[in-house]
Amino acid sequence: MNAVPSTLLQQTEQLSESVTRPIPGSRKIHVEGSRPDLRVPMREIALSRTPTLFGGEDNPPVTVYDTSGPYTDPDARIDLALGLPALRARWIEERGDTEVLTALTSEFGRARESNAKLDSVRFPNRALPRRAKAGMNVSQMHYAKQGIITPEMEFVAIRENQRLEAVREAHLLMQHPGENFGANIQKIITPEFVRDEIARGRAILPNNINHPESEPMIIGRNFLTKINANIGNSAVSSGIAEEVEKLVWSIRWGGDTVMDLSTGKHIHETREWIIRNSPVPIGTVPIYQALEKVDGRAEELTWEMFRDTLIEQAEQGVDYFTIHAGVLLRYVPLTAKRTTGIVSRGGSIMAKWCLAHHKENFLYTHFEEICEIMKAYDVAFSLGDGLRPGCLADANDAAQFGELETLGELTKIAWKHDVQTMIEGPGHVPMQLIKENMDKQLRECGEAPFYTLGPLTTDIAPGYDHITSAIGAAMIGWYGTAMLCYVTPKEHLGLPNRQDVRDGIMAYKIAAHAADLAKGHPGAQIRDNALSKARFEFRWEDQFHLGLDPEKAKEFHDETLPKDAHKVAHFCSMCGPHFCSMKITQDVRDYAAEHGVDEAKALEAGMAEKSQEFREKGAQVYHKE
Amino acid sequence: MNAVPSTLLQQTEQLSESVTRPIPGSRKIHVEGSRPDLRVPMREIALSRTPTLFGGEDNPPVTVYDTSGPYTDPDARIDLALGLPALRARWIEERGDTEVLTALTSEFGRARESNAKLDSVRFPNRALPRRAKAGMNVSQMHYAKQGIITPEMEFVAIRENQRLEAVREAHLLMQHPGENFGANIQKIITPEFVRDEIARGRAILPNNINHPESEPMIIGRNFLTKINANIGNSAVSSGIAEEVEKLVWSIRWGGDTVMDLSTGKHIHETREWIIRNSPVPIGTVPIYQALEKVDGRAEELTWEMFRDTLIEQAEQGVDYFTIHAGVLLRYVPLTAKRTTGIVSRGGSIMAKWCLAHHKENFLYTHFEEICEIMKAYDVAFSLGDGLRPGCLADANDAAQFGELETLGELTKIAWKHDVQTMIEGPGHVPMQLIKENMDKQLRECGEAPFYTLGPLTTDIAPGYDHITSAIGAAMIGWYGTAMLCYVTPKEHLGLPNRQDVRDGIMAYKIAAHAADLAKGHPGAQIRDNALSKARFEFRWEDQFHLGLDPEKAKEFHDETLPKDAHKVAHFCSMCGPHFCSMKITQDVRDYAAEHGVDEAKALEAGMAEKSQEFREKGAQVYHKE
Repeated sequence: MNAVPSTLLQQTEQLSESVTRPIPGSRKIHVEGSRPDLRVPMREIALSRTPTLFGGEDNPPVTVYDTSGPYTDPDARIDLALGLPALRARWIEERGDTEVLTALTSEFGRARESNAKLDSVRFPNRALPRRAKAGMNVSQMHYAKQGIITPEMEFVAIRENQRLEAVREAHLLMQHPGENFGANIQKIITPEFVRDEIARGRAILPNNINHPESEPMIIGRNFLTKINANIGNSAVSSGIAEEVEKLVWSIRWGGDTVMDLSTGKHIHETREWIIRNSPVPIGTVPIYQALEKVDGRAEELTWEMFRDTLIEQAEQGVDYFTIHAGVLLRYVPLTAKRTTGIVSRGGSIMAKWCLAHHKENFLYTHFEEICEIMKAYDVAFSLGDGLRPGCLADANDAAQFGELETLGELTKIAWKHDVQTMIEGPGHVPMQLIKENMDKQLRECGEAPFYTLGPLTTDIAPGYDHITSAIGAAMIGWYGTAMLCYVTPKEHLGLPNRQDVRDGIMAYKIAAHAADLAKGHPGAQIRDNALSKARFEFRWEDQFHLGLDPEKAKEFHDETLPKDAHKVAHFCSMCGPHFCSMKITQDVRDYAAEHGVDEAKALEAGMAEKSQEFREKGAQVYHKE
Repeated sequence: MNAVPSTLLQQTEQLSESVTRPIPGSRKIHVEGSRPDLRVPMREIALSRTPTLFGGEDNPPVTVYDTSGPYTDPDARIDLALGLPALRARWIEERGDTEVLTALTSEFGRARESNAKLDSVRFPNRALPRRAKAGMNVSQMHYAKQGIITPEMEFVAIRENQRLEAVREAHLLMQHPGENFGANIQKIITPEFVRDEIARGRAILPNNINHPESEPMIIGRNFLTKINANIGNSAVSSGIAEEVEKLVWSIRWGGDTVMDLSTGKHIHETREWIIRNSPVPIGTVPIYQALEKVDGRAEELTWEMFRDTLIEQAEQGVDYFTIHAGVLLRYVPLTAKRTTGIVSRGGSIMAKWCLAHHKENFLYTHFEEICEIMKAYDVAFSLGDGLRPGCLADANDAAQFGELETLGELTKIAWKHDVQTMIEGPGHVPMQLIKENMDKQLRECGEAPFYTLGPLTTDIAPGYDHITSAIGAAMIGWYGTAMLCYVTPKEHLGLPNRQDVRDGIMAYKIAAHAADLAKGHPGAQIRDNALSKARFEFRWEDQFHLGLDPEKAKEFHDETLPKDAHKVAHFCSMCGPHFCSMKITQDVRDYAAEHGVDEAKALEAGMAEKSQEFREKGAQVYHKE
């Protein structure tokens, strides 16, 4: 442990056991790619043998996507003050198009660095950042357009496949055909397909060159649906150590990316700790920090200080920026008659600035300058929907759709600069209007990935908005949204605690997986099939382990039937032995086995005849026996 | 208190305060119909005035559907040992087509009644049951077909409207057009429309003449989407007092009907306590009790003892029976190759019986005899889907759809007898297959109401199946399902406790309301609009009160900002004062007000011109200022 002794470091040194303990019934594995330093993490769930009663057979392990990083790897040594290993460092270096800076570029960053008062909260092992060499573009989109398959792209291809080839051999792949609404779903993801999707702008691979600790992942409608979890303190709340722990907690349950929405005093330092310890891409909304710098007075925001903020964060390693460049002055009056006006924080800040200056949004007017920064670090755009509807009444209105059209326009500009781009979406939308929204986004934004918050399908359930929004999220994911931003039960009411974060992520893992199934992603149903088989065969532990939250499943089971014996019992707590339908089904199977399939068929045929007799007698079904 | 002293009675005498306390911010009201004894309960939520900052105005109260019965009425005197007032007794009597029996008809019922050992658990104030006079049919469908509008039908019409006329005047009705997939949604529900829907078989009004305590409600795709909650002990679990409390708890949160799935020792007595104290229709699965009577040996079931069970329960007042008459012998072998075989308890019992006897399901062969019983008490059919899929892999397969076709055939037979009928549906179905299921049900069953369990849209989230299934429930409700049977977080894992029941009901109230909004039920959005307006205006208490669960909303809010002052504060806990988008929106409105709408329009026009300039310069958006 290399560290400046401080209370903070003592705190951050130790993550609680609850966020790092191995996930029950499974182990971390790594699949090697074309080079030894390309090792793609996955989680393998071991399954027990089918009991003899049900035919006795081995059940092959199931491999699942793993976002949890080294934290759930018993072989990894975690030292938060050192940060995670920089697994992409060599790949970045090898490309030879970046240079290590001799000092931070942003004024603000330098000021923070030289401020001795911050020593006690500063991440102690900060390396100097990299930037593209003059005239170079280091975005994955740029490489992709040139036909280059980067190690990041290969990593992603392996990761998306989840050893599907291996599983295919072992499992009888039984899956319903999907309805993909025009998505281009592949049977096997090749690195070339990844490259092509990124070049086409249909997918993004957010990985800032200053975040070499990240495990590459991809966001696009032709890949697995991803979810984002938000963390971040606020004026009212938490500290640095707590935020890092929230990060680790979020990825444990399946957050594919994490947005740091901190707005507190040590926003810069908190972000550094988070990025250095994050195996997933980190997104931010730079305007939040910019507003802090002018003490909350939106009208005092300037392009120059915003620009400095972008560079400050780009050099820390933020992987994508939410930029509210579509909040145009002419759209602002369209919100005046809304039920809930502007509910996006970033959107309202920019609206206020526009009104105060009676000028066009500086994020819009300086958009190409922003692109220049983005491509020097490979930061991806998440074009913010500052005018998203905050209630059903405002859904799909002129302000929202006007902004979406502008985001489409900006997407094309970003692509001209080879800057990776995704588009943020609503919000609150009743079910019957969700598809219109998705279709318009695909059309206006040339299939750039859509990244939606929910949408919430009703306004009347404060305290349960993870559910109101999981419904909308599953549907919009099915229709084509690439990443779903989670909503916790505390939405609209307060700041989420640890339990809320877990509940929000679970609701969104469900929505994302339901979407993958509905789109017909190859292999998406393997885990469902394995779990259901385990359920049928009363392999309780396997059922828990295959679930999205093995700990909760076991805990719930044990509330009713805590004894270990019950985890192998051939009936379950809900019905008791007489009523066990699983048991009766086994009798049916035994009958079919005993009498042979022919007899079963004969039975079917014979009864069909009898039934025909019934029908011929008209409605006179009843007859004496 | 008229009671045999016993521990049970002392227990049941007192419902806990948590299940009976008034729902915060609202009061029970009654809307009178065409006769003074026709008083339809509703809940009126009072709203506070809009703060001056936001324009200061009165907010009219919002009336919402109320399933909670007299329990949340401070004026009602609750005595569980007396049961609820028999509000429909006079209506039933007036029709003159029923008679009070001199003794129970069922052998089993008589045996229980004369067994002194049961005195301590028996409901003490049981009246003798009624039955149709010889040759009479007392079903609401029968009256409807003859053009008679019963008080029950008028009650339902008033109830469905929720004082929409009054609310329309007060509120500016802003609601998105729905997509109703061929449903016949009315602007105002008239008693005649109710009659017509019941006559047509498109809706049912489940209210056994022996359950005069029930407040009439209707289940049909052209009415508000309803939800059912299941209660019931099992071999492993609870007693009578607990079950009654579960009933009251379920309807407090919005259960429209409750199914009593008890399988324990005092199944008959428990049911009596539940029915006598239930203001909502009670459903049962009579085969469960029949199986208890033969000690769990399915092959010993006989038509005669099943018939006795039906009569026993019909005379207690059960409002609908799940009858698994579609599990035909020829379908059983179709389940042998399934991943999870037969998962319906009732379905598996009947399958076992069919196999053991190599005979057709006696529920099918005696179906018309069952109809005779149903119409003598007005018990509605809930035709059980004994072959519903228990996992995604088995969804929409030959067994499931074969049974559904048979249920369609049986529906027509039931209708011939003027017996009210709904159809049960799955189960586990991935999103892309849900509509096929709904469409087939409408087609095969002549639009008889569909009553589905979920469906669950993925198998991989044990512990969160209220969410996996709320997604499917919202969608199938939108497509046309009339009632959604809830699923709790404990599904597949254990018996739900009180918290699980509340969570399950909330998930389903959300799904049902999302469906109503999507179908475009007139007025469905009023509550959403009122809540969102309250949210925008920082009327925190109003926001809580308009929510589906006011207690949870307040509790969550108070976790972050417990002080009372924060409930009127003009910013909230999530963002703090600087970041409050609501506050900024108000600035936008003030600006629009100050500068006039004309200026706002001019602004829009002027900026549109400027933007035109931008576009004409091609993608060259950036320009120096």
